[in-house]
Amino acid sequence: MDEKFMELAIEEARKGEGLVNPNPLVGAVIVKNGKILSTGYHEYFGGRHAEIVAIENAKKMGYDIKGAEIYVTLEPCVHYGKTPPCTDRIIREGFSAVYIGTLDPNPMVHGKGEEKLKNAGICVKHGILEVKAKELIEVFAKYMKTKMPFVALKLAMSLDGFITSMRGKRERITSDRAREKVHRLRNYYSAIMIGSKTAISDDPLLTCRYSFCKRNPIRIILDRSGKTAKVNLKLFAQEGRTIIFTSSNERWPENVEVIRKDDLSPEPILKALGKMGIDSVLVEGGANVASQFINYADKIHLFYAPIAFGNGLSPFDRKFKGFTTKRVEVYHPDIYWELIPCSQV
Amino acid sequence: MDEKFMELAIEEARKGEGLVNPNPLVGAVIVKNGKILSTGYHEYFGGRHAEIVAIENAKKMGYDIKGAEIYVTLEPCVHYGKTPPCTDRIIREGFSAVYIGTLDPNPMVHGKGEEKLKNAGICVKHGILEVKAKELIEVFAKYMKTKMPFVALKLAMSLDGFITSMRGKRERITSDRAREKVHRLRNYYSAIMIGSKTAISDDPLLTCRYSFCKRNPIRIILDRSGKTAKVNLKLFAQEGRTIIFTSSNERWPENVEVIRKDDLSPEPILKALGKMGIDSVLVEGGANVASQFINYADKIHLFYAPIAFGNGLSPFDRKFKGFTTKRVEVYHPDIYWELIPCSQV
Repeated sequence: MDEKFMELAIEEARKGEGLVNPNPLVGAVIVKNGKILSTGYHEYFGGRHAEIVAIENAKKMGYDIKGAEIYVTLEPCVHYGKTPPCTDRIIREGFSAVYIGTLDPNPMVHGKGEEKLKNAGICVKHGILEVKAKELIEVFAKYMKTKMPFVALKLAMSLDGFITSMRGKRERITSDRAREKVHRLRNYYSAIMIGSKTAISDDPLLTCRYSFCKRNPIRIILDRSGKTAKVNLKLFAQEGRTIIFTSSNERWPENVEVIRKDDLSPEPILKALGKMGIDSVLVEGGANVASQFINYADKIHLFYAPIAFGNGLSPFDRKFKGFTTKRVEVYHPDIYWELIPCSQV
Repeated sequence: MDEKFMELAIEEARKGEGLVNPNPLVGAVIVKNGKILSTGYHEYFGGRHAEIVAIENAKKMGYDIKGAEIYVTLEPCVHYGKTPPCTDRIIREGFSAVYIGTLDPNPMVHGKGEEKLKNAGICVKHGILEVKAKELIEVFAKYMKTKMPFVALKLAMSLDGFITSMRGKRERITSDRAREKVHRLRNYYSAIMIGSKTAISDDPLLTCRYSFCKRNPIRIILDRSGKTAKVNLKLFAQEGRTIIFTSSNERWPENVEVIRKDDLSPEPILKALGKMGIDSVLVEGGANVASQFINYADKIHLFYAPIAFGNGLSPFDRKFKGFTTKRVEVYHPDIYWELIPCSQV
């Protein structure tokens, strides 16, 4: 057992970012006599599982995988979903060992895959690089357990904590490097959410515009009184899916999905999104939406630029704590701070 | 030439933190046939230079240093100060090579030490790990060139940029780990500066209270109207030096140095401190003092706690930019962000 193979399996899994939701990101590596024979990852929603991709890649290259070891970031499945159970295939191929990053978080499945493999006489060990392996399926785990999307909050601020220097005035705060990271987030999460005020004042595209972007996220606008129906937002003319939550009877363009709701507080919104199969949402602004959704956040992505505004608009209208640091990174000249709920440490 | 020996010399130099001001931090390592014979650092103000300490340590251990190489973080001196020139000693001992981190920033000395060594037939190379070697003498370089102290600003904030949640109410924001880092800063800089408002509301000790602390910094209070003379601040009863800048004629306790000035703006204050031999000052609060001194800051040390206040006191009363990221670090659960002026990149 060698952690570097699991590290590689995790890297493989990441290649599916933006393509597999609401399925999990999974990667696999096949090793024989210390040599990597093949790799595989879950490539798109409903596609072959990572183990199967790795097995078929190895065969394509003419390798004999009997007696080989397989590293897989998530416990192999035992059930028939869109594809037959991976455990059966692993047993049939005659693997000698299966190394698992983390067990399936679904309590109905958890450990069953491992058990089946062990009963077939295969060496199995789970919990290899488990923190990273779990992070890989954070969206999947939340959605699968709660049927509500994983909620991520993103804010860009001056170092003294203002999201704009003056109310209503649009200003780009962070640099190109930070911007690229934001687009990585847009590629990672299934949807982006903003309020009507931000939609009108910024008129953003909310697309993913870098070479690594594999698709545009679903755009969600919270617009109680239907203000955005009266303006010709750029994003209405964009390809892709746009969803408006509103209590108004205004008419929006044909290609916009309008969901009429009287209660636009976070819980009913998140439940509705969950029912629509949306597993994750990146709350991108502004202050009202951030203040409301902060209590539902599974992750906070903060960007600070090395400038002070002295005064301006604060992102939150109330006190909160219960978050802790996951990581910090530099996106010169800005910094990035990722926080997670204390309950998830 | 091997950078790892310079790395060690830099580590050695750091041992003098808090003890050498307004002299520079300097470290030296003597190497022969790839083996470290001895190390040395500038240990206290007016004490032996690092090269001499390393040479004498080597001799104490009975090593023959003829033909050895010496790594020194700062260009060896050519002038008689409190000690005779190190270049002469290096030549006399018969070193074969001298590796220098950075040249002496003093334009009168810059390169002269290197030249003298070269003229004596010794191999000399400078600029080894220069960024780190320069950082080691940042305080010395600023003070030597400008006769004004190096100004560092320290702030602890909520993630939404407030230094207190409500005006006047004292609250500890950051954790024990961040606190320890703050005390490292207190040990590093010669003096701490606060305003009268912070002095009265927080009644701080402003001492350095960890095992690594070698002495307490000089305490400086800016108190235009003499408010602190009427209260019995804890720090007045503390050992060590306290300096009050004021335009008032109030009487302070005997052990407090009172400097009467009509103009308490940053420039005359910094010039006065420079004249007193104070090479560096850590501006620790509050908002008024921070706002005034930000334009003189050579470094900003920011700490953010993973909490939001929603509203409260902002540290700055005006816009500024011109700073950029030097580093970020995690002091769980808080983060630390170090910024330097763009002009110093």
